[in-house]
Amino acid sequence: MQTKTLDVLFEETLRDMYFAERKILRTLPKLARTAQSPDLRAALKTHGEETQLHVERLQQVFELLGKPARGKTCPAIDGIIEEGEEVMKAFADSPALDASLIAAAQAVEHYEITRYGTLVRWAQVLGRTDLASILEQTLQQETMTDETLTLIADGSVNQAALQAA
Amino acid sequence: MQTKTLDVLFEETLRDMYFAERKILRTLPKLARTAQSPDLRAALKTHGEETQLHVERLQQVFELLGKPARGKTCPAIDGIIEEGEEVMKAFADSPALDASLIAAAQAVEHYEITRYGTLVRWAQVLGRTDLASILEQTLQQETMTDETLTLIADGSVNQAALQAA
Repeated sequence: MQTKTLDVLFEETLRDMYFAERKILRTLPKLARTAQSPDLRAALKTHGEETQLHVERLQQVFELLGKPARGKTCPAIDGIIEEGEEVMKAFADSPALDASLIAAAQAVEHYEITRYGTLVRWAQVLGRTDLASILEQTLQQETMTDETLTLIADGSVNQAALQAA
Repeated sequence: MQTKTLDVLFEETLRDMYFAERKILRTLPKLARTAQSPDLRAALKTHGEETQLHVERLQQVFELLGKPARGKTCPAIDGIIEEGEEVMKAFADSPALDASLIAAAQAVEHYEITRYGTLVRWAQVLGRTDLASILEQTLQQETMTDETLTLIADGSVNQAALQAA
């Protein structure tokens, strides 16, 4: 049996993210349609376009590794998205809907930030700086999206959530 | 029917974290027993003690709100922990076990970082700086734990994961 060293863990985690990114790609348009704030809607739409790029970057990494691009069910993203959908449903007619939506989207971003942060470091240790720099581009976009969402929350959404409609 | 404004969303999210923290409290000793690196084992043990404090801080926040401390099933943390356990099982006899364990623990930390970050901002908007400052203490410990885990990964664990045993 082959010893499962870091390269195997790296590939397994890539597959986990390949599943997660494609699920996020399907989920973001639903979030954008639900959002009440035009700024939030625009930010989610932009991030949907970026997510398409993230999927393509993962395909590029698989190709450079000489491995087929295959996803692997990721219970973490399933749970995070399930919880987000539950909360948004519970707050559907609430002035706090957008606030709940930002919290759900930031939970998704933080999952991606931790996973890409890990993948970048593992790629470096594996001597694959080419892969690290591709993954680093996605990591930066996830971090920026998280910051944008905080700005939108602080700018208007959290205050609006205080008021009964 | 009562309009569900931000105060209701805040309480629901507190209940989500109360469930999550108690689940993490039960999970950390298992992770610590599994860890091979003495540094990692010590860090997980320390964080287990901190997590007990985080549970108590949430109880204090509920008390200051005049609400019973009650948890609410959190599919996100269930999914994150399920995935961590799956990966650790798959890498049980692998030199990459500790690397997989750090990745799992950092996914947990990032979930907590995003949720406490959100709760602190909501508490401020709700005019409850007393609650914000209690939750901020936990947020800082989660952030520090995440950084400590990165240092341990960089220090020895990722290099060790390269070598077939």
